[in-house]
Amino acid sequence: MNAILKGRLVGVGTGPGDPELLTLKAARALAEADVVAYFAKRGNNSNARAIVEARFRPDMIELPLLYPVTTEIDKDHDDYRAQISDFYEQSAEQVAEHLGAGRMVAVLSEGDPLFYGSYMHLHVRLAHRFPTEVIPGITAMSGCWSTTGLPIVQGDDVLTVLPGTMSEFELTRRLADTDAAVIMKVGRNLPKIRRALEAAGKLTKAVYVERGTMPGSVSMRLAEKPDDKAPYFAIVLVAGWSARPGAKA
Amino acid sequence: MNAILKGRLVGVGTGPGDPELLTLKAARALAEADVVAYFAKRGNNSNARAIVEARFRPDMIELPLLYPVTTEIDKDHDDYRAQISDFYEQSAEQVAEHLGAGRMVAVLSEGDPLFYGSYMHLHVRLAHRFPTEVIPGITAMSGCWSTTGLPIVQGDDVLTVLPGTMSEFELTRRLADTDAAVIMKVGRNLPKIRRALEAAGKLTKAVYVERGTMPGSVSMRLAEKPDDKAPYFAIVLVAGWSARPGAKA
Repeated sequence: MNAILKGRLVGVGTGPGDPELLTLKAARALAEADVVAYFAKRGNNSNARAIVEARFRPDMIELPLLYPVTTEIDKDHDDYRAQISDFYEQSAEQVAEHLGAGRMVAVLSEGDPLFYGSYMHLHVRLAHRFPTEVIPGITAMSGCWSTTGLPIVQGDDVLTVLPGTMSEFELTRRLADTDAAVIMKVGRNLPKIRRALEAAGKLTKAVYVERGTMPGSVSMRLAEKPDDKAPYFAIVLVAGWSARPGAKA
Repeated sequence: MNAILKGRLVGVGTGPGDPELLTLKAARALAEADVVAYFAKRGNNSNARAIVEARFRPDMIELPLLYPVTTEIDKDHDDYRAQISDFYEQSAEQVAEHLGAGRMVAVLSEGDPLFYGSYMHLHVRLAHRFPTEVIPGITAMSGCWSTTGLPIVQGDDVLTVLPGTMSEFELTRRLADTDAAVIMKVGRNLPKIRRALEAAGKLTKAVYVERGTMPGSVSMRLAEKPDDKAPYFAIVLVAGWSARPGAKA
Protein backbone atom coordinates (compact mmCIF):
# COMPACT_ATOMS: atom_id res chain seq x y z
CA MET A 1 0.00 0.00 0.00
CA ASN A 2 2.80 2.40 -0.87
CA ALA A 3 0.33 4.53 -2.78
CA ILE A 4 -1.51 5.45 0.42
CA LEU A 5 1.72 6.36 2.17
CA LYS A 6 2.64 8.73 -0.64
CA GLY A 7 -0.59 10.76 -0.41
CA ARG A 8 0.38 14.13 1.00
CA LEU A 9 -1.50 17.36 1.65
CA VAL A 10 0.49 20.59 1.25
CA GLY A 11 -0.96 24.02 2.02
CA VAL A 12 0.94 26.39 -0.26
CA GLY A 13 1.07 30.12 0.50
CA THR A 14 1.31 31.98 -2.81
CA GLY A 15 2.15 35.35 -1.24
CA PRO A 16 0.31 38.62 -1.83
CA GLY A 17 0.35 38.93 -5.63
CA ASP A 18 3.82 39.39 -7.12
CA PRO A 19 4.70 35.90 -8.49
CA GLU A 20 8.32 36.49 -7.40
CA LEU A 21 7.20 36.66 -3.77
CA LEU A 22 6.58 32.92 -3.82
CA THR A 23 9.06 31.01 -1.63
CA LEU A 24 11.52 28.53 -3.11
CA LYS A 25 9.77 25.83 -1.09
CA ALA A 26 6.37 26.69 -2.56
CA ALA A 27 7.87 26.64 -6.06
CA ARG A 28 9.27 23.17 -5.39
CA ALA A 29 5.94 21.91 -4.03
CA LEU A 30 4.22 23.09 -7.22
CA ALA A 31 6.86 21.36 -9.34
CA GLU A 32 6.17 18.09 -7.48
CA ALA A 33 2.40 18.16 -6.89
CA ASP A 34 0.10 15.72 -8.69
CA VAL A 35 -2.99 17.82 -7.97
CA VAL A 36 -3.36 21.57 -7.46
CA ALA A 37 -6.54 22.66 -5.65
CA TYR A 38 -7.89 26.12 -4.85
CA PHE A 39 -11.08 27.81 -3.67
CA ALA A 40 -12.81 30.19 -6.07
CA LYS A 41 -16.12 31.90 -6.59
CA ARG A 42 -18.05 30.61 -9.59
CA GLY A 43 -17.30 32.85 -12.58
CA ASN A 44 -14.40 34.59 -10.78
CA ASN A 45 -10.74 33.85 -11.25
CA SER A 46 -8.83 32.67 -8.20
CA ASN A 47 -6.13 35.19 -7.23
CA ALA A 48 -3.99 32.42 -5.78
CA ARG A 49 -4.25 30.47 -9.04
CA ALA A 50 -3.33 33.55 -11.12
CA ILE A 51 -0.18 34.13 -9.02
CA VAL A 52 1.26 30.66 -9.74
CA GLU A 53 -0.46 29.80 -13.04
CA ALA A 54 2.85 30.03 -14.95
CA ARG A 55 4.05 27.03 -12.91
CA PHE A 56 1.16 24.72 -13.82
CA ARG A 57 2.25 21.59 -15.71
CA PRO A 58 0.17 19.83 -18.38
CA ASP A 59 0.30 16.59 -16.35
CA MET A 60 -1.06 18.29 -13.21
CA ILE A 61 -4.68 17.69 -12.20
CA GLU A 62 -6.43 21.01 -11.52
CA LEU A 63 -9.12 20.89 -8.83
CA PRO A 64 -11.12 24.12 -8.47
CA LEU A 65 -13.33 24.13 -5.36
CA LEU A 66 -16.22 26.42 -6.28
CA TYR A 67 -18.12 28.17 -3.50
CA PRO A 68 -21.88 27.65 -3.67
CA VAL A 69 -23.91 30.68 -4.74
CA THR A 70 -24.91 32.26 -1.42
CA THR A 71 -25.42 35.93 -2.23
CA GLU A 72 -29.12 35.79 -1.35
CA ILE A 73 -28.57 34.48 2.17
CA ASP A 74 -27.35 36.59 5.10
CA LYS A 75 -23.86 35.53 6.25
CA ASP A 76 -24.93 35.29 9.89
CA HIS A 77 -27.93 33.15 9.00
CA ASP A 78 -27.87 29.48 10.03
CA ASP A 79 -28.71 28.42 6.47
CA TYR A 80 -25.58 30.15 5.18
CA ARG A 81 -23.43 28.57 7.86
CA ALA A 82 -24.87 25.12 7.14
CA GLN A 83 -24.41 25.52 3.39
CA ILE A 84 -20.81 26.73 3.68
CA SER A 85 -19.98 24.01 6.21
CA ASP A 86 -21.41 21.36 3.84
CA PHE A 87 -19.33 22.87 1.05
CA TYR A 88 -16.11 22.59 3.08
CA GLU A 89 -16.99 18.98 3.98
CA GLN A 90 -17.52 18.10 0.33
CA SER A 91 -14.35 19.94 -0.71
CA ALA A 92 -12.36 18.05 1.92
CA GLU A 93 -13.73 14.76 0.60
CA GLN A 94 -12.77 15.67 -2.97
CA VAL A 95 -9.22 16.36 -1.80
CA ALA A 96 -9.24 13.22 0.40
CA GLU A 97 -10.04 11.05 -2.63
CA HIS A 98 -6.84 12.19 -4.33
CA LEU A 99 -4.84 11.78 -1.11
CA GLY A 100 -6.27 8.30 -0.60
CA ALA A 101 -5.16 7.42 -4.14
CA GLY A 102 -1.59 8.32 -3.12
CA ARG A 103 -1.40 11.72 -4.80
CA MET A 104 0.34 14.82 -3.52
CA VAL A 105 -2.22 17.63 -3.38
CA ALA A 106 -1.06 21.27 -3.22
CA VAL A 107 -3.82 23.56 -1.95
CA LEU A 108 -3.17 27.15 -2.98
CA SER A 109 -3.79 29.96 -0.53
CA GLU A 110 -3.27 33.65 -1.31
CA GLY A 111 -0.93 35.17 1.27
CA ASP A 112 -0.26 32.79 4.16
CA PRO A 113 -2.41 29.62 4.46
CA LEU A 114 -3.04 29.77 8.23
CA PHE A 115 -3.43 33.57 8.43
CA TYR A 116 -7.08 34.25 7.51
CA GLY A 117 -6.72 31.70 4.68
CA SER A 118 -9.47 29.44 3.34
CA TYR A 119 -6.98 26.53 3.26
CA MET A 120 -7.50 26.04 6.99
CA HIS A 121 -11.02 24.71 6.39
CA LEU A 122 -9.39 21.76 4.62
CA HIS A 123 -6.51 21.57 7.10
CA VAL A 124 -8.75 21.01 10.14
CA ARG A 125 -10.65 18.28 8.27
CA LEU A 126 -7.67 16.45 6.75
CA ALA A 127 -4.45 17.06 8.71
CA HIS A 128 -5.27 14.30 11.23
CA ARG A 129 -5.97 11.82 8.42
CA PHE A 130 -3.06 12.39 6.00
CA PRO A 131 0.58 13.52 6.14
CA THR A 132 0.31 17.30 5.94
CA GLU A 133 2.70 20.20 5.54
CA VAL A 134 2.02 23.94 5.51
CA ILE A 135 4.33 26.22 3.51
CA PRO A 136 4.00 29.79 4.79
CA GLY A 137 3.57 32.68 2.37
CA ILE A 138 4.21 36.42 2.48
CA THR A 139 1.06 38.00 3.94
CA ALA A 140 -0.81 40.81 2.18
CA MET A 141 -0.01 43.16 5.07
CA SER A 142 3.72 42.43 4.80
CA GLY A 143 3.57 43.01 1.04
CA CYS A 144 1.86 46.35 1.73
CA TRP A 145 4.30 47.72 4.31
CA SER A 146 7.24 46.56 2.17
CA THR A 147 5.89 48.20 -1.00
CA THR A 148 5.36 51.48 0.84
CA GLY A 149 8.67 51.19 2.74
CA LEU A 150 6.89 51.71 6.07
CA PRO A 151 8.71 50.30 9.13
CA ILE A 152 5.63 48.90 10.86
CA VAL A 153 6.98 47.76 14.26
CA GLN A 154 10.23 48.03 16.17
CA GLY A 155 11.55 47.14 19.62
CA ASP A 156 8.72 46.56 22.09
CA ASP A 157 5.88 47.82 19.86
CA VAL A 158 2.48 46.12 20.13
CA LEU A 159 0.87 45.33 16.76
CA THR A 160 -2.89 44.78 16.43
CA VAL A 161 -4.50 43.31 13.32
CA LEU A 162 -8.13 44.41 13.07
CA PRO A 163 -10.98 43.62 10.66
CA GLY A 164 -12.60 46.80 9.31
CA THR A 165 -15.95 45.10 9.86
CA MET A 166 -15.81 45.85 13.63
CA SER A 167 -18.06 48.46 15.21
CA GLU A 168 -16.74 52.03 15.21
CA PHE A 169 -16.59 51.95 19.01
CA GLU A 170 -14.46 48.78 19.08
CA LEU A 171 -12.20 49.97 16.28
CA THR A 172 -11.60 53.29 18.04
CA ARG A 173 -10.95 51.64 21.39
CA ARG A 174 -8.46 49.15 19.95
CA LEU A 175 -6.69 51.69 17.73
CA ALA A 176 -6.19 53.97 20.75
CA ASP A 177 -4.74 51.04 22.72
CA THR A 178 -2.00 49.87 20.33
CA ASP A 179 1.32 51.13 18.98
CA ALA A 180 0.88 49.80 15.45
CA ALA A 181 -2.18 48.58 13.58
CA VAL A 182 -3.16 46.83 10.39
CA ILE A 183 -6.79 47.20 9.32
CA MET A 184 -8.00 44.60 6.83
CA LYS A 185 -11.33 44.19 5.00
CA VAL A 186 -11.54 47.89 4.21
CA GLY A 187 -14.01 48.31 1.29
CA ARG A 188 -17.20 50.09 2.32
CA ASN A 189 -15.93 50.25 5.93
CA LEU A 190 -13.51 53.05 4.98
CA PRO A 191 -15.59 56.04 6.27
CA LYS A 192 -15.99 54.26 9.63
CA ILE A 193 -12.27 53.38 9.72
CA ARG A 194 -11.41 57.01 9.02
CA ARG A 195 -13.60 58.23 11.90
CA ALA A 196 -12.17 55.62 14.27
CA LEU A 197 -8.58 56.60 13.39
CA GLU A 198 -9.42 60.28 13.87
CA ALA A 199 -11.02 59.60 17.27
CA ALA A 200 -8.01 57.50 18.30
CA GLY A 201 -5.65 60.32 17.30
CA LYS A 202 -3.98 58.20 14.60
CA LEU A 203 -5.44 59.45 11.31
CA THR A 204 -2.32 61.46 10.42
CA LYS A 205 -0.17 58.32 10.76
CA ALA A 206 -2.46 56.08 8.68
CA VAL A 207 -1.38 54.87 5.24
CA TYR A 208 -3.87 53.47 2.73
CA VAL A 209 -2.65 50.69 0.38
CA GLU A 210 -4.55 49.18 -2.54
CA ARG A 211 -3.45 46.07 -4.51
CA GLY A 212 -0.22 45.78 -2.42
CA THR A 213 2.43 44.08 -4.54
CA MET A 214 0.28 43.78 -7.68
CA PRO A 215 0.45 45.87 -10.86
CA GLY A 216 -1.43 49.14 -10.38
CA SER A 217 -0.60 49.30 -6.68
CA VAL A 218 -1.72 52.54 -4.99
CA SER A 219 -0.62 53.94 -1.65
CA MET A 220 -1.09 57.30 0.04
CA ARG A 221 -1.63 58.89 3.42
CA LEU A 222 -5.24 58.11 4.29
CA ALA A 223 -5.77 61.74 5.35
CA GLU A 224 -4.94 62.76 1.76
CA LYS A 225 -7.24 60.25 0.06
CA PRO A 226 -9.99 62.43 -1.41
CA ASP A 227 -12.75 59.81 -1.59
CA ASP A 228 -14.02 56.81 0.33
CA LYS A 229 -13.89 54.35 -2.57
CA ALA A 230 -11.87 51.28 -1.61
CA PRO A 231 -11.78 47.62 -2.64
CA TYR A 232 -12.52 45.03 0.05
CA PHE A 233 -8.89 43.88 0.10
CA ALA A 234 -7.37 47.35 0.57
CA ILE A 235 -5.36 47.67 3.79
CA VAL A 236 -4.77 50.56 6.20
CA LEU A 237 -1.43 50.62 8.05
CA VAL A 238 -0.48 52.57 11.17
CA ALA A 239 3.24 52.34 11.95
CA GLY A 240 4.17 51.97 15.59
CA TRP A 241 7.62 53.32 15.29
CA SER A 242 7.74 57.11 15.39
CA ALA A 243 11.15 57.44 13.76
CA ARG A 244 11.03 58.52 10.13
CA PRO A 245 13.69 59.48 7.58
CA GLY A 246 16.02 61.85 9.36
CA ALA A 247 15.05 60.69 12.84
CA LYS A 248 17.90 59.64 15.10
CA ALA A 249 16.32 56.68 16.88
CA MET B 1 27.18 59.93 -13.60
CA ASN B 2 25.47 56.64 -14.45
CA ALA B 3 27.30 55.01 -11.57
CA ILE B 4 25.37 57.09 -9.04
CA LEU B 5 22.06 56.22 -10.68
CA LYS B 6 22.82 52.52 -10.42
CA GLY B 7 23.42 52.57 -6.65
CA ARG B 8 20.49 50.76 -5.10
CA LEU B 9 19.58 49.74 -1.56
CA VAL B 10 17.60 46.52 -1.16
CA GLY B 11 16.32 45.27 2.19
CA VAL B 12 16.17 41.50 1.83
CA GLY B 13 14.01 39.40 4.15
CA THR B 14 15.68 36.01 4.57
CA GLY B 15 12.69 34.37 6.25
CA PRO B 16 12.70 32.56 9.60
CA GLY B 17 15.48 29.99 9.14
CA ASP B 18 14.74 27.34 6.50
CA PRO B 19 16.79 28.48 3.45
CA GLU B 20 13.93 27.28 1.21
CA LEU B 21 11.61 29.86 2.77
CA LEU B 22 13.49 32.60 0.92
CA THR B 23 11.37 34.22 -1.81
CA LEU B 24 12.32 33.97 -5.48
CA LYS B 25 12.72 37.76 -5.45
CA ALA B 26 15.16 37.66 -2.55
CA ALA B 27 17.14 34.92 -4.31
CA ARG B 28 17.36 37.09 -7.42
CA ALA B 29 18.45 40.14 -5.40
CA LEU B 30 21.28 38.09 -3.87
CA ALA B 31 22.32 36.86 -7.32
CA GLU B 32 22.56 40.50 -8.49
CA ALA B 33 23.92 42.35 -5.46
CA ASP B 34 27.43 43.82 -5.48
CA VAL B 35 27.54 44.11 -1.70
CA VAL B 36 25.80 42.05 0.98
CA ALA B 37 25.52 43.74 4.40
CA TYR B 38 24.15 42.45 7.71
CA PHE B 39 24.12 43.35 11.39
CA ALA B 40 25.84 40.98 13.80
CA LYS B 41 27.17 40.85 17.31
CA ARG B 42 30.95 40.66 17.52
CA GLY B 43 31.97 37.00 17.84
CA ASN B 44 28.46 35.76 16.97
CA ASN B 45 27.32 34.47 13.62
CA SER B 46 24.52 36.37 11.92
CA ASN B 47 21.42 34.16 11.56
CA ALA B 48 20.38 36.05 8.43
CA ARG B 49 23.82 35.45 6.90
CA ALA B 50 23.71 31.73 7.75
CA ILE B 51 20.32 31.34 6.03
CA VAL B 52 21.57 32.65 2.66
CA GLU B 53 25.31 31.88 2.92
CA ALA B 54 25.07 29.21 0.20
CA ARG B 55 24.12 31.99 -2.24
CA PHE B 56 27.19 34.16 -1.60
CA ARG B 57 29.38 34.67 -4.67
CA PRO B 58 33.19 35.05 -4.60
CA ASP B 59 32.88 38.43 -6.35
CA MET B 60 30.43 39.77 -3.75
CA ILE B 61 31.67 42.28 -1.16
CA GLU B 62 30.66 41.18 2.34
CA LEU B 63 29.95 44.02 4.78
CA PRO B 64 29.34 42.89 8.37
CA LEU B 65 28.02 45.70 10.58
CA LEU B 66 29.21 44.77 14.06
CA TYR B 67 27.29 46.08 17.06
CA PRO B 68 29.49 47.87 19.60
CA VAL B 69 30.08 46.00 22.85
CA THR B 70 27.40 47.41 25.16
CA THR B 71 26.80 44.65 27.70
CA GLU B 72 28.01 46.80 30.59
CA ILE B 73 25.56 49.63 29.94
CA ASP B 74 21.85 49.49 30.79
CA LYS B 75 19.67 49.47 27.66
CA ASP B 76 17.49 52.32 28.93
CA HIS B 77 20.52 54.45 29.76
CA ASP B 78 21.17 57.53 27.61
CA ASP B 79 24.76 56.39 27.01
CA TYR B 80 23.50 53.15 25.47
CA ARG B 81 21.02 54.98 23.27
CA ALA B 82 23.67 57.45 22.13
CA GLN B 83 26.17 54.69 21.40
CA ILE B 84 23.68 52.58 19.43
CA SER B 85 22.44 55.63 17.53
CA ASP B 86 26.04 56.53 16.60
CA PHE B 87 26.54 52.95 15.48
CA TYR B 88 23.51 53.08 13.16
CA GLU B 89 24.72 56.41 11.75
CA GLN B 90 28.16 54.97 11.03
CA SER B 91 26.65 51.80 9.55
CA ALA B 92 24.41 53.88 7.27
CA GLU B 93 27.44 55.84 6.10
CA GLN B 94 29.35 52.63 5.33
CA VAL B 95 26.43 51.45 3.21
CA ALA B 96 26.04 54.92 1.65
CA GLU B 97 29.65 54.84 0.44
CA HIS B 98 28.92 51.72 -1.61
CA LEU B 99 25.63 53.16 -2.87
CA GLY B 100 27.37 56.41 -3.82
CA ALA B 101 29.91 54.37 -5.79
CA GLY B 102 27.01 52.93 -7.83
CA ARG B 103 26.81 49.54 -6.16
CA MET B 104 23.71 47.51 -5.38
CA VAL B 105 23.70 46.76 -1.65
CA ALA B 106 21.53 43.93 -0.28
CA VAL B 107 20.97 44.30 3.46
CA LEU B 108 19.97 40.98 5.01
CA SER B 109 17.25 40.86 7.63
CA GLU B 110 16.09 37.68 9.36
CA GLY B 111 12.34 37.29 8.93
CA ASP B 112 10.75 40.40 7.40
CA PRO B 113 12.86 43.61 7.16
CA LEU B 114 10.21 46.08 8.35
CA PHE B 115 8.68 43.81 11.02
CA TYR B 116 10.90 44.28 14.11
CA GLY B 117 13.95 44.09 11.80
CA SER B 118 17.26 45.91 12.30
CA TYR B 119 17.29 46.81 8.58
CA MET B 120 14.86 49.66 9.28
CA HIS B 121 17.59 51.62 11.07
CA LEU B 122 19.37 51.84 7.71
CA HIS B 123 16.12 52.32 5.78
CA VAL B 124 15.11 55.49 7.66
CA ARG B 125 18.60 56.95 7.14
CA LEU B 126 19.06 56.03 3.46
CA ALA B 127 15.72 55.51 1.68
CA HIS B 128 15.30 59.26 1.03
CA ARG B 129 18.82 59.48 -0.43
CA PHE B 130 19.02 56.41 -2.70
CA PRO B 131 16.66 54.25 -4.79
CA THR B 132 15.41 51.70 -2.29
CA GLU B 133 13.37 48.52 -2.40
CA VAL B 134 12.20 46.26 0.42
CA ILE B 135 11.68 42.55 -0.28
CA PRO B 136 9.40 41.07 2.39
CA GLY B 137 10.29 37.81 4.11
CA ILE B 138 8.36 35.10 5.93
CA THR B 139 8.14 36.22 9.57
CA ALA B 140 9.26 34.01 12.46
CA MET B 141 5.68 33.89 13.76
CA SER B 142 4.37 32.69 10.40
CA GLY B 143 7.10 30.04 10.26
CA CYS B 144 6.05 28.91 13.75
CA TRP B 145 2.30 28.58 13.15
CA SER B 146 2.98 26.84 9.81
CA THR B 147 5.42 24.33 11.35
CA THR B 148 2.92 23.47 14.08
CA GLY B 149 -0.05 23.50 11.65
CA LEU B 150 -1.96 25.93 13.88
CA PRO B 151 -4.63 28.02 12.11
CA ILE B 152 -3.88 31.30 13.90
CA VAL B 153 -6.70 33.60 12.71
CA GLN B 154 -9.87 33.27 10.69
CA GLY B 155 -12.81 35.46 9.68
CA ASP B 156 -13.09 38.53 11.90
CA ASP B 157 -10.50 37.47 14.50
CA VAL B 158 -8.35 40.17 16.11
CA LEU B 159 -4.64 39.28 16.32
CA THR B 160 -2.33 40.98 18.82
CA VAL B 161 1.47 40.71 18.66
CA LEU B 162 2.98 41.30 22.09
CA PRO B 163 6.55 41.50 23.40
CA GLY B 164 7.09 39.19 26.39
CA THR B 165 9.00 42.05 28.01
CA MET B 166 5.72 43.81 28.98
CA SER B 167 4.54 43.95 32.58
CA GLU B 168 2.43 41.02 33.77
CA PHE B 169 -0.54 43.35 34.22
CA GLU B 170 -0.33 44.66 30.63
CA LEU B 171 0.23 41.19 29.17
CA THR B 172 -2.79 39.82 31.04
CA ARG B 173 -5.00 42.73 30.06
CA ARG B 174 -4.10 42.49 26.37
CA LEU B 175 -4.30 38.68 26.22
CA ALA B 176 -7.80 38.82 27.74
CA ASP B 177 -8.82 41.42 25.13
CA THR B 178 -7.85 39.60 21.91
CA ASP B 179 -8.95 36.57 19.90
CA ALA B 180 -5.46 35.46 18.85
CA ALA B 181 -2.03 36.38 20.16
CA VAL B 182 1.63 35.98 19.31
CA ILE B 183 4.07 36.56 22.17
CA MET B 184 7.65 37.27 21.09
CA LYS B 185 10.86 37.77 23.12
CA VAL B 186 10.06 34.88 25.43
CA GLY B 187 13.35 33.82 27.12
CA ARG B 188 13.37 34.56 30.84
CA ASN B 189 9.91 36.15 30.55
CA LEU B 190 8.31 32.70 30.26
CA PRO B 191 7.13 32.33 33.91
CA LYS B 192 5.46 35.77 33.66
CA ILE B 193 3.92 34.90 30.26
CA ARG B 194 2.56 31.66 31.72
CA ARG B 195 0.92 33.52 34.64
CA ALA B 196 -0.56 36.15 32.31
CA LEU B 197 -2.02 33.48 30.00
CA GLU B 198 -3.48 31.64 33.00
CA ALA B 199 -5.04 34.85 34.36
CA ALA B 200 -6.46 35.68 30.92
CA GLY B 201 -8.00 32.19 30.67
CA LYS B 202 -5.86 31.27 27.65
CA LEU B 203 -3.12 29.00 29.00
CA THR B 204 -4.78 25.81 27.71
CA LYS B 205 -4.82 27.26 24.16
CA ALA B 206 -1.18 28.43 24.21
CA VAL B 207 1.43 26.67 22.06
CA TYR B 208 5.16 27.08 22.71
CA VAL B 209 7.52 27.01 19.68
CA GLU B 210 11.31 27.00 19.74
CA ARG B 211 13.56 27.42 16.65
CA GLY B 212 10.49 27.56 14.34
CA THR B 213 11.52 26.33 10.89
CA MET B 214 15.12 25.50 11.86
CA PRO B 215 16.62 22.05 12.50
CA GLY B 216 15.84 20.91 16.05
CA SER B 217 12.52 22.74 16.11
CA VAL B 218 10.44 22.07 19.24
CA SER B 219 6.75 22.74 19.80
CA MET B 220 4.31 21.72 22.52
CA ARG B 221 1.32 22.94 24.46
CA LEU B 222 2.74 25.49 26.89
CA ALA B 223 0.69 23.92 29.71
CA GLU B 224 2.64 20.68 29.11
CA LYS B 225 6.10 22.26 29.06
CA PRO B 226 7.68 21.00 32.30
CA ASP B 227 10.24 23.79 32.78
CA ASP B 228 10.62 27.52 32.22
CA LYS B 229 13.80 27.32 30.13
CA ALA B 230 13.32 29.16 26.83
CA PRO B 231 15.55 30.94 24.33
CA TYR B 232 14.90 34.65 23.74
CA PHE B 233 13.56 33.96 20.25
CA ALA B 234 11.04 31.30 21.28
CA ILE B 235 7.44 32.25 20.47
CA VAL B 236 4.11 31.55 22.17
CA LEU B 237 1.03 31.29 19.94
CA VAL B 238 -2.63 31.51 20.92
CA ALA B 239 -4.96 30.63 18.04
CA GLY B 240 -8.07 32.74 17.69
CA TRP B 241 -10.10 30.23 15.82
CA SER B 242 -11.81 27.70 18.06
CA ALA B 243 -12.34 25.08 15.36
CA ARG B 244 -9.94 22.15 15.54
CA PRO B 245 -9.68 18.85 13.66
CA GLY B 246 -13.17 17.39 13.66
CA ALA B 247 -14.88 20.73 14.24
CA LYS B 248 -17.58 21.67 11.76
CA ALA B 249 -16.97 25.41 11.43
